[in-house]
Amino acid sequence: MKIEDLDTPSLIVDLDRMQRNIERMAEIARNAGVALRPHAKTHKIPHIGRLQLRAGSPGLTVAKLGEAEVFMDGGIEDLFIAYPLWGEAKWQRLCHLAERGSIRVAADSYDVLEGISQSAARHGIRIPVRLEVDCGFGRCGLQTPEEVRTLARRMGGLHGVTLVGLMGFGGQSYAQEDAEGIRRVAREEGEQLVGIASLLRADGFDIRDVSAGSTPTAPHVARVPGITEIRPGTYIFSDRDQVALGWGELDDCALTLLVTVISRPTPTRAIVDGGSKTFSSDTVAHGDGMGAVRNHPDYIVSWLTEEHGILEVPPDAHLPIGTRLDIIPNHACAALNLHDRLVAVRGENVEEVWPVAARGRVQ
Amino acid sequence: MKIEDLDTPSLIVDLDRMQRNIERMAEIARNAGVALRPHAKTHKIPHIGRLQLRAGSPGLTVAKLGEAEVFMDGGIEDLFIAYPLWGEAKWQRLCHLAERGSIRVAADSYDVLEGISQSAARHGIRIPVRLEVDCGFGRCGLQTPEEVRTLARRMGGLHGVTLVGLMGFGGQSYAQEDAEGIRRVAREEGEQLVGIASLLRADGFDIRDVSAGSTPTAPHVARVPGITEIRPGTYIFSDRDQVALGWGELDDCALTLLVTVISRPTPTRAIVDGGSKTFSSDTVAHGDGMGAVRNHPDYIVSWLTEEHGILEVPPDAHLPIGTRLDIIPNHACAALNLHDRLVAVRGENVEEVWPVAARGRVQ
Repeated sequence: MKIEDLDTPSLIVDLDRMQRNIERMAEIARNAGVALRPHAKTHKIPHIGRLQLRAGSPGLTVAKLGEAEVFMDGGIEDLFIAYPLWGEAKWQRLCHLAERGSIRVAADSYDVLEGISQSAARHGIRIPVRLEVDCGFGRCGLQTPEEVRTLARRMGGLHGVTLVGLMGFGGQSYAQEDAEGIRRVAREEGEQLVGIASLLRADGFDIRDVSAGSTPTAPHVARVPGITEIRPGTYIFSDRDQVALGWGELDDCALTLLVTVISRPTPTRAIVDGGSKTFSSDTVAHGDGMGAVRNHPDYIVSWLTEEHGILEVPPDAHLPIGTRLDIIPNHACAALNLHDRLVAVRGENVEEVWPVAARGRVQ
Repeated sequence: MKIEDLDTPSLIVDLDRMQRNIERMAEIARNAGVALRPHAKTHKIPHIGRLQLRAGSPGLTVAKLGEAEVFMDGGIEDLFIAYPLWGEAKWQRLCHLAERGSIRVAADSYDVLEGISQSAARHGIRIPVRLEVDCGFGRCGLQTPEEVRTLARRMGGLHGVTLVGLMGFGGQSYAQEDAEGIRRVAREEGEQLVGIASLLRADGFDIRDVSAGSTPTAPHVARVPGITEIRPGTYIFSDRDQVALGWGELDDCALTLLVTVISRPTPTRAIVDGGSKTFSSDTVAHGDGMGAVRNHPDYIVSWLTEEHGILEVPPDAHLPIGTRLDIIPNHACAALNLHDRLVAVRGENVEEVWPVAARGRVQ
């Protein structure tokens, strides 16, 4: 089957581009001497996770327990759930997973740790925990080294959890104006975590994991001495936002939406058959527009409604109804999350169609 | 089962609130003497479509052929596909649908009409078509009465399509500053379509359907003499955006996300277990914020990342980890489109769980 045989819209990954992205980040981690534990929320597909393991990763990161279950079922048995889990149902599921493979989990409160501990104790197991530190993003995470130390000591009294590390996410990197800003966020994130790890070790805690970094910061934070792991996700596909933040060029983006021009209301307007339910409404931090048309930098994806993409094109553009375009989304993770299937292509050939197995696993 | 037995995040519809919204719009249409053909892209669930038919609608509107197939399979046999369909595969599917029920389709170009006509002629059928007019939104649609007339005449030479009406969508209503602006858009949309319908009738065309309106404009455009049908969608749930545009109050919103507080990093910050992959990234035209917390107007949903919702709360808010909140999304259609299941509740009781059957039918 060829790409031209696909109906549209179709979510497509270019296998060669994806493999280059996989190898590029693997090499960054290898050169820095840190583990690469990719965030699988970007792709949600076990087969792609196995390609990341084949490139040297010990395991994956996930955000949702439901994602962890899908990847475990897909044979990936070393998982970090970078999310505070709440409630008896989730703690039970976590324990079932921990009995099947190597599971670590994030937490930033005694309440969550106590809940996990009680379930784990009933199962006769201990769950390894990484405490989350707020590295300036203002989302989850303990606010000060003292808060981390206090929680580390309190959790010593819980029988079902073991402190094994720290995690941070300097998400403010996405809002930086330039490469220097991103490097600064990465350095600060890394140094903050490494500093707290030292404090804890001085207190006698065995801190093995010091985990940081997303796609923009990972190449930099990986080189901060004491960091043991990076957790980028979007690098595997890249997208319009990541290119603006410095991860490769638009031509390196592996994930695209194949769409068709379905209306040409005016000489400068073309409508394609994908909108915010195909691409997501995610914008880019730097610049306008809702996507980039491959090979046509002069076409602007100016806005999206739910099922329509509105392109502004030069008046002399040869773009009859029926023309197919390949559009790089602003945010690959959000776009993929809208689709049940990902079509894997090499050149013009369709090689496989993968179910987006962990999509919709919101709990 | 009770709501308290659900895990989170869960997408929930309050059946009583939904029924009131269904009846309110049905009454508006009845009083104005127009048909109500609700846009089913909002809910994507055949059972909900049947409730709309029970309230007096002759059929539904859909945006996607895949949605039409799901609703036809669900026993709803009168469907308007408000979308220009392109390509042999889609034209074939359209003809198969038209052999099973009453299907009308939108078009705004000869190219699309010719394609549909050729498939229909092979099937020995004629597909009823409504020509789409751009009523100032700047998306699809013919630009002038003259363009409509020219296309109407040209399509007379095609054997597989029959012109039966016009459609418009004054989507610019969403950007209006006040109720008067919305009424003006509605009036202009209605008068434009009715005027063109008169021109076509004077040319001998049998224009039966003059279809307009979305939730903000429907109550107004329904009263423009000559309009025969309104196509609102979001009214059935309503959402934060629709309330700002004048459709009821926040308390009338039927669709919410049940979420749990999973982290309390600071006294004024609470993190819930739903983000842009749970709510969507859709903003509101008027105002800030990414949702409204039911019964807690003093909690602000200030931003979302993929799996986290970041709330700003008063320093004295009693909001321990584990607290459940019910959050009204900015845009119900986009939020629902992220979920595989919708939990139908009445009061505190879970009555049914419906698969979001047409979700993911992107083609």
